[in-house]
Amino acid sequence: MLKSLLENVREKAPLIHNITNYVTVNDCANILLACGASPIMADDFGEAEEITSVCGGLNINIGTLNQNTIPSMFAAGKRSNELNHPVILDPVGAGASKLRTETADKLIRELSFTAIRGNISEIKTLALGAGTTKGVDADVADIVTEDTLDRVIVFAKQFAKQTGTVIAITGAIDIVATADKAYAIRNGHPMMSRITGTGCMLTAMTAAFLVANPNQPLEATVASICAMGLCGERAFARLTKDDGNSTLRNYIIDEIYNLDGDTLKSGANYEVR
Amino acid sequence: MLKSLLENVREKAPLIHNITNYVTVNDCANILLACGASPIMADDFGEAEEITSVCGGLNINIGTLNQNTIPSMFAAGKRSNELNHPVILDPVGAGASKLRTETADKLIRELSFTAIRGNISEIKTLALGAGTTKGVDADVADIVTEDTLDRVIVFAKQFAKQTGTVIAITGAIDIVATADKAYAIRNGHPMMSRITGTGCMLTAMTAAFLVANPNQPLEATVASICAMGLCGERAFARLTKDDGNSTLRNYIIDEIYNLDGDTLKSGANYEVR
Amino acid sequence: MLKSLLENVREKAPLIHNITNYVTVNDCANILLACGASPIMADDFGEAEEITSVCGGLNINIGTLNQNTIPSMFAAGKRSNELNHPVILDPVGAGASKLRTETADKLIRELSFTAIRGNISEIKTLALGAGTTKGVDADVADIVTEDTLDRVIVFAKQFAKQTGTVIAITGAIDIVATADKAYAIRNGHPMMSRITGTGCMLTAMTAAFLVANPNQPLEATVASICAMGLCGERAFARLTKDDGNSTLRNYIIDEIYNLDGDTLKSGANYEVR
Repeated sequence: MLKSLLENVREKAPLIHNITNYVTVNDCANILLACGASPIMADDFGEAEEITSVCGGLNINIGTLNQNTIPSMFAAGKRSNELNHPVILDPVGAGASKLRTETADKLIRELSFTAIRGNISEIKTLALGAGTTKGVDADVADIVTEDTLDRVIVFAKQFAKQTGTVIAITGAIDIVATADKAYAIRNGHPMMSRITGTGCMLTAMTAAFLVANPNQPLEATVASICAMGLCGERAFARLTKDDGNSTLRNYIIDEIYNLDGDTLKSGANYEVR
Repeated sequence: MLKSLLENVREKAPLIHNITNYVTVNDCANILLACGASPIMADDFGEAEEITSVCGGLNINIGTLNQNTIPSMFAAGKRSNELNHPVILDPVGAGASKLRTETADKLIRELSFTAIRGNISEIKTLALGAGTTKGVDADVADIVTEDTLDRVIVFAKQFAKQTGTVIAITGAIDIVATADKAYAIRNGHPMMSRITGTGCMLTAMTAAFLVANPNQPLEATVASICAMGLCGERAFARLTKDDGNSTLRNYIIDEIYNLDGDTLKSGANYEVR
Repeated sequence: MLKSLLENVREKAPLIHNITNYVTVNDCANILLACGASPIMADDFGEAEEITSVCGGLNINIGTLNQNTIPSMFAAGKRSNELNHPVILDPVGAGASKLRTETADKLIRELSFTAIRGNISEIKTLALGAGTTKGVDADVADIVTEDTLDRVIVFAKQFAKQTGTVIAITGAIDIVATADKAYAIRNGHPMMSRITGTGCMLTAMTAAFLVANPNQPLEATVASICAMGLCGERAFARLTKDDGNSTLRNYIIDEIYNLDGDTLKSGANYEVR
């Protein structure tokens, strides 16, 4: 399964419209190129609809949302919905400010998302109306462990049912759910949390997987998350004792660039729940 | 020729004002520093004219143009023209949206550019009023090959004549033309297209070459393109099997940092057409 | 002293609100993560106060200031002051445009800063109302040397007295001063000036040191500057002959990631003046 899902990305080379933050945007562009897709970043209201029309899918990331880019998110999202393009949301920092929480809520109400990917605090904020998000990292109280896994899977399925969307909650253990099926993924390395933008990069890349695999949004999301986690492991394994988070970031993108379907298939560590 | 053109950049250390996109801006700043120039990024209307006045040249890149930065491009461009500073345009994605096409057209009409650098789809859009730009990469139908090279050179010279500007069309084969002279450059490596911003970096660096070599805009542009392509080749040669596009990006900037005039002279692969 | 100052950052993992430029923002985020802190970037007026309230400190950097972000700097700054959070200013390019000079002046008048870090041209602009800033680098005429060191220390102490702020002037020799005590630091490597954002990264990291060491703002600033300089030296020592400024940037962040208190203590090169 994973093999062909990745190979479809490389073969179809989908063009992805990104309305994203200026912190990690360069890494998002490079990881899209690394996986075989093409990125375009365009956030002015005057071109948001038109750009999304020539693309295959849309990635909305609220990491540095502002009064100019929020209307562009809605305009591009509505147009993408009309065109039946996959649309993915990364609700960065939802819960950390009213602007973020309300914008994410409104995006979910007014647009139809193929998938939403966030950390547990962000997704809880969206689902429960109140979270414990502190900044852009998951709150310690929320962290998914083997003990809480069952509960979080039930929660993810419920929220997926309610929204009609693939819900991806990433962290030490990643959960990807639709209303009646969930995957738990155990790829990745803790040091990835010391790089800015691993979440943003993952969401951007997932957009490419969704576009290249239009009939399998759940599996496409799982494949993208496995790919990111596996490449994080492989990148970590390359580090020498003097390397740190900057080199790890570079190596993760490099590993995505070199990842083939067989490596993904054999290295992916997931189970159906 | 190329040797002294590069050495002039290192000796004169020109200060370049960049109004550019937030995707590749960091790489643009670092490649300007790598070649011996100094970057300043400033895109607010309230300072655009003043900043450009203390610089030696201006780089306008419309990669993430918006309602706030477009007026700054015109203001800085007009002031630079008054001061006879070299001004270069990178019409990123011209043809992909009306906003991009119209802004680029208006920039060309109202400002005097020393050089314009884009891919073939972008330049065709500017010259012919209609292109086949998809996103920010050249459309496959437009790609310059040995078979189409003669025709594209005629086209480039015509557009150069019409605009009074050095026209640089970069791709697998790069073409740089004035009304009556053209160069074809065969440096570079295909993998460079898997990095975001090689075009943006090249345009930024070309601004520095133009400022440091004010009486030779055609040759300065050729030198900058040869330098970028050669450093792409040299960076590629350094890659190990696990390296990918992120490391290639870093190595290209590193190679520019280390490039000397003799290496450029002996590695440049160009012909006059 | 330095040992515990760094260890406090790693233990307390302060959350830092950054209103900063889009050129070096990714490096600022990664160096904050490297030193053990967490970054959040948020510059919309609609959330600036609220985001700063959940953080431990605020980093204001005017590198690409604009009409939208300037009010956010004031709003976040005032709220941070009310909450007694450390606030640091990086007056990038003060002196290069009226907008930068006046904004920096107004920020200093209306807000209470724990520390201000800039190059000598920027700090002279703030202190004397007129500087010789060209672009974002220090003017040659201003460079601090062993000959001018005594005079600059007097100047720094006076400006620190006048503002009630820790004043950090960085360059070949770094000076950190309060009204009655100053440090001269001789860490770092000249090649660091060929990377964009070493100053921005340093200011961002200093915010984390200030938050983690609330009762020792002078020493916290010294520790951060020593850490940056030392890691610059160590990163430079790792370079091979083909490496350049891009790899140096990556290695500096990596070195901060790996830096421990003992290494900082033994490698720091400072004296009290």
